[in-house]
Amino acid sequence: MNDTLKGIFAAALTPLNSDLSVDHERLVSHCRWLLENGCDGLAVLGTTGEANSFNLAERIGILETLSDAGIPGSALMPGTGSCSIPETVEMTRRAVELGAAGVLMLPPFYYKNVSDEGLFAAYSEVIERVGDDRLKVYLYHFPQMSAVPLSYDLIERLLKRYPDTIAGMKDSSGVFDNMAGAAEKFPGFGVFSGGDDFLLPLLKKGGVGCITAVCNIACNLSAELYQAWQNDDPAAEDLQNKLITVREAAQSYPYSAGLKSLLAHYSGDQGWVTVRPPLVALDETQAADLVGLVAATGHTPPPVG
Amino acid sequence: MNDTLKGIFAAALTPLNSDLSVDHERLVSHCRWLLENGCDGLAVLGTTGEANSFNLAERIGILETLSDAGIPGSALMPGTGSCSIPETVEMTRRAVELGAAGVLMLPPFYYKNVSDEGLFAAYSEVIERVGDDRLKVYLYHFPQMSAVPLSYDLIERLLKRYPDTIAGMKDSSGVFDNMAGAAEKFPGFGVFSGGDDFLLPLLKKGGVGCITAVCNIACNLSAELYQAWQNDDPAAEDLQNKLITVREAAQSYPYSAGLKSLLAHYSGDQGWVTVRPPLVALDETQAADLVGLVAATGHTPPPVG
Repeated sequence: MNDTLKGIFAAALTPLNSDLSVDHERLVSHCRWLLENGCDGLAVLGTTGEANSFNLAERIGILETLSDAGIPGSALMPGTGSCSIPETVEMTRRAVELGAAGVLMLPPFYYKNVSDEGLFAAYSEVIERVGDDRLKVYLYHFPQMSAVPLSYDLIERLLKRYPDTIAGMKDSSGVFDNMAGAAEKFPGFGVFSGGDDFLLPLLKKGGVGCITAVCNIACNLSAELYQAWQNDDPAAEDLQNKLITVREAAQSYPYSAGLKSLLAHYSGDQGWVTVRPPLVALDETQAADLVGLVAATGHTPPPVG
Repeated sequence: MNDTLKGIFAAALTPLNSDLSVDHERLVSHCRWLLENGCDGLAVLGTTGEANSFNLAERIGILETLSDAGIPGSALMPGTGSCSIPETVEMTRRAVELGAAGVLMLPPFYYKNVSDEGLFAAYSEVIERVGDDRLKVYLYHFPQMSAVPLSYDLIERLLKRYPDTIAGMKDSSGVFDNMAGAAEKFPGFGVFSGGDDFLLPLLKKGGVGCITAVCNIACNLSAELYQAWQNDDPAAEDLQNKLITVREAAQSYPYSAGLKSLLAHYSGDQGWVTVRPPLVALDETQAADLVGLVAATGHTPPPVG
């Protein structure tokens, strides 16, 4: 079994230029800002980061930019899963080559109601084709978006076959019993909550941290909570409650567009707001409403450059 | 408004080698066999053809193979939609260059509960980036698999903006009122049923044909039915009923694996059975059961070489 990654990971947003191409410079700045303000790591190219809206070359380009900019691989858990095995293999291999400490791997998500046998075969093909001992896979369980849930039976089978490779899971199901149950059932398997609401409860049950969208604006708060928990500081409870209120405010609009809108506000730079279709940017009224809702929680993000 | 494609289109299977690579030779033979046995066209690289399990290079390779083999572009409606706009653009552009009479375009299907505004923007970006008057788009409505339904409002908006490009729709929802309603509401918009069960009923309501998985083994029957309907031959009703029984038998197992298993049986070549994970090939018992179920309908496919 592995030493798992742990702590506060941002499901980092991917800033775009007005022509919908990736704004690499802003991306590097944002990633640095996240790491300087409490994040233990960056889950770039996840759902919040609009990964599946980029083609393979764009996704590899993002990883290379971060590597070239000196973002340490030890802090990176990029999303690499796609519908196609060859594409997942190519992306995963590049992530490993660039030193990523882990990869967050969606199952192939086009076909629905597939069997555990088929999902096992898919993950197995990827792991064996990548064929690299450095590969550490975090399974990405997000039934509401992928519509392809990952069962305990599948996890168990994968752990048995690839004990040194299957390192953990991001559970974005919102079902606390599922994530806590996995942490309990599979010792050493690093279970991250995909939601800020369960950070502290999951840590108490043996989970290792969270990987969240809201972290893009609340990294300081999440980190403070994580630190308090590590120090057995009872303030952790209040911090968790505060984080829940920030999350609830942020959830008033779709995450990628809403969080980009908030960063546009905090940075004073409207260049932040662009999302790729099929996502849609907030209009001015929505953006102002969201800023107000988050401000009402009393939360202030670290100063954005 | 366009002259739409029409008639019997096979959602053609993609044969694979044992290492999961595409068996190009067998693919060409199968496509020729379909066209020689009643198909008006080939919707290659759809759901049944496991399109999303291939990377872009593999999908383009399939189109180039068919073109090189002399399969006429006038008979081709390849699937080109993916989660990412740049990838959809590249695939669509290549299809148009190779003379495909139409393309079958899924919406970006990773994000769920997206707005019509976002879907319009996605289709719009693709159409404008391809920027080719020869492009004819058939929208692919398959909510059970893509989990991203296409509304009448979206179709109306796209038709208004791109009247010479938006040519029709494949409706795999299984909801007859949706496909018949679209045929009625949008004159000249070519509505294909995604299921064999609604071929005749939809033709009667102004639809233009069907694009189906079962066509891979029942092209002769579908073509006979379509011909009977064109000739006002009352035998069409009985043929429709027979096609429904064949469809019901074929539906006893997942389509791609089941139909490949049937073609292995009819051709005597077990090389047919391979599918890409997350799909799983039928085991021997299942395969024998499926052969029996289809045989019990009395249907015989044309001789498979």
